[in-house]
Amino acid sequence: MEGQSTKWTFRGNELLDETAAVSVRAYLNMLYDHVNKDDQRPIIPLAHGDPSAFACFRTSPEAVDAIVHAVQSNEFNSYAPAIGILPARRAVAEYLSADLPYNLSADDIYLTVGCTQAIEVILSVLARPGANILLSRPGYPIYESRAVFNKLEVRHFDLIPEKGWEVDLESVEALADENTAAMVIISPGNPCGNVFSYQHLKKVAETARKLGILVIADEVYGHLAFGSNPYVPMGELGSIAPVISLGSISKRWIVPGWRFGWVATCDPNGILKKYGIADSIKNYFNIASNPATFIQAAIPRILEKTKEDFFSRTINIMREAADICYEQIKEIPLVTCPHKPDGSMFAMVKLNLSLLEDISDDMDFCVQLAREESVIVLPGVAVGLKNWLRITFAIEPESLQQGLDRMKAFCQRHSRK
Amino acid sequence: MEGQSTKWTFRGNELLDETAAVSVRAYLNMLYDHVNKDDQRPIIPLAHGDPSAFACFRTSPEAVDAIVHAVQSNEFNSYAPAIGILPARRAVAEYLSADLPYNLSADDIYLTVGCTQAIEVILSVLARPGANILLSRPGYPIYESRAVFNKLEVRHFDLIPEKGWEVDLESVEALADENTAAMVIISPGNPCGNVFSYQHLKKVAETARKLGILVIADEVYGHLAFGSNPYVPMGELGSIAPVISLGSISKRWIVPGWRFGWVATCDPNGILKKYGIADSIKNYFNIASNPATFIQAAIPRILEKTKEDFFSRTINIMREAADICYEQIKEIPLVTCPHKPDGSMFAMVKLNLSLLEDISDDMDFCVQLAREESVIVLPGVAVGLKNWLRITFAIEPESLQQGLDRMKAFCQRHSRK
Repeated sequence: MEGQSTKWTFRGNELLDETAAVSVRAYLNMLYDHVNKDDQRPIIPLAHGDPSAFACFRTSPEAVDAIVHAVQSNEFNSYAPAIGILPARRAVAEYLSADLPYNLSADDIYLTVGCTQAIEVILSVLARPGANILLSRPGYPIYESRAVFNKLEVRHFDLIPEKGWEVDLESVEALADENTAAMVIISPGNPCGNVFSYQHLKKVAETARKLGILVIADEVYGHLAFGSNPYVPMGELGSIAPVISLGSISKRWIVPGWRFGWVATCDPNGILKKYGIADSIKNYFNIASNPATFIQAAIPRILEKTKEDFFSRTINIMREAADICYEQIKEIPLVTCPHKPDGSMFAMVKLNLSLLEDISDDMDFCVQLAREESVIVLPGVAVGLKNWLRITFAIEPESLQQGLDRMKAFCQRHSRK
Repeated sequence: MEGQSTKWTFRGNELLDETAAVSVRAYLNMLYDHVNKDDQRPIIPLAHGDPSAFACFRTSPEAVDAIVHAVQSNEFNSYAPAIGILPARRAVAEYLSADLPYNLSADDIYLTVGCTQAIEVILSVLARPGANILLSRPGYPIYESRAVFNKLEVRHFDLIPEKGWEVDLESVEALADENTAAMVIISPGNPCGNVFSYQHLKKVAETARKLGILVIADEVYGHLAFGSNPYVPMGELGSIAPVISLGSISKRWIVPGWRFGWVATCDPNGILKKYGIADSIKNYFNIASNPATFIQAAIPRILEKTKEDFFSRTINIMREAADICYEQIKEIPLVTCPHKPDGSMFAMVKLNLSLLEDISDDMDFCVQLAREESVIVLPGVAVGLKNWLRITFAIEPESLQQGLDRMKAFCQRHSRK
């Protein structure tokens, strides 16, 4: 035995170290570390897209029953086919088709371990040498991290706050070249809480067609719209440009921990098949894991049996919470919300740093807010927009009110005299 | 609208197309397509590592109850921390520590979506530019496919049939260089059905130390040993060379569809931490999905409450099935099994092609067997050993007997006169 003299050859992967710094989780962990343990008040989490811990956001009993039924049957302990079991893929196809002008088939659906794996799948498929992808700023950081890991070049287009966070389509056109594979929109919007109009989505599709790129529509917040714009799935425009929709039951059923999502090809002209994208998606699953078989087996029942009441109750709470959030923020002199949130679970709020004393930027704001008020808010830098904040309103309205009250007190304390 | 003239820029990922051809699933799908639909007899599946469909291999009721309890509590609908919830990581650490000369802590455990994701994690971590990894021949093809996708160079060492499928450590030494990060052993063996002795594993560890590489021990079949060699976890030798153990409840609890596994760092000297491997593993989970939270929550109960009876019953059926398999194969003149299986769920069997008429190779053998006898056996080429077969004995003994009877009749029919 050579003892100390062994020269170990392995090292950690630098690409992964690069991705680590930019995750939402990393920011949250850091902020929680700053909370004052002597503060007797409850911590108010205004940074998560996960309200499932709150009693008013409990999932539907039909969904729980469907899981129990599936696991107790002992019929779904086996491996599932790589892209998912047929009844579940068919049920998702029917669920999505209900809002589309054409029908998806089970062959358009690939089941994933939450929307996170759906992102992994599609970025892995598009990561050919030299390829690039257009992501929005602000956006959702896992797209950036996965693209870095897959060596897929990222280019950023803007969302325009003054236009209700619409896509700056001119910047999209300016960024794209012959190596651009796709653009990503998040609809309803994370982090902006906006709901794109049909007219705007049509322009997105037309731009994609003009550029010859596909549209990846992250619709994990699908149906969570409570303002004047109804939720329009991007697939409605699938005949203009091919659309790959990413979705999950995480948000609408408020079960992000169940880890069930999908990739859906919404492409009535069969372009994705023709250019090998459909095959590549299928092939990726040969080297990937998939959702628990009994969860897949529960999906038809979950999608069919959940009562409309459950959805409308959630939407009503969200609407009320968004109202509280917007009105309260108006009362805080040092922040502005350019667009009242009408979808998803978030509002983007701009800091007026010139009016703040002893606070250098959004990160500093969030750290001091966590320390002094035990309120957790995500700094905009985490989603690509420095000196903004992302505030979640999807928590119990009473806690939301408390959290915003504390934030107001904090701002008053720190405002330039 | 430009109509037909749009020039679409995206294409499928060639790397993924490459990986598609070599998956076990691809071989199985192809073989099932050859089964004669007019054959009234049941199809006998001797190619899967998944006996969960058979009544005698039903999982323990304690495991099902633990899942039901967790999902009905409504306490585990939220996102879990990226590497898993603490009680589950602690429970896995205790479960593994019971067989080790030192204790693992929860910090050594990372929860994964089955062992498939554990493979994905570790190969993604090791895939630095220029790095290579040593895999066994025969082996498990997902390692090859994932390595191809991650551009991690693969070099193959042999397992020696005449020595009970021990690792050819001389070939390991000859293959390794300063860019070799790790060697992978599958223990108990897939596809060989062997159980490595303590003495041999010690030599593996010493070789790894000499070469400065880490040992990845795929222990998904851990504890499924029923011959004279007891199952020894590679982690027992973790003080000689650092070990990363990959495991899951899939095989021992016969629930591969539940998709719960882990990566465990078995490294009492802290070398993996020192060289950044532990951080890279953690970082990978920032861009990856994880097992359903309520399944994680059920794990402590599953690991603690499953009765010894359940395990011994499974082992007894496996032992009986392995005996049937080995004895029956002896009766078939055209195939030989160099090592009686004493672990996992498989036997490797060599074809004597010179005695077979009108059969060109292992693939041809399996296709014709599927067509004529509705028996599915995996061609050796799928696991890296041409003109061998991998036969699963982990099915109901009666079906196994039938399958081997049909295979015998098939061989007699095709033997050179």
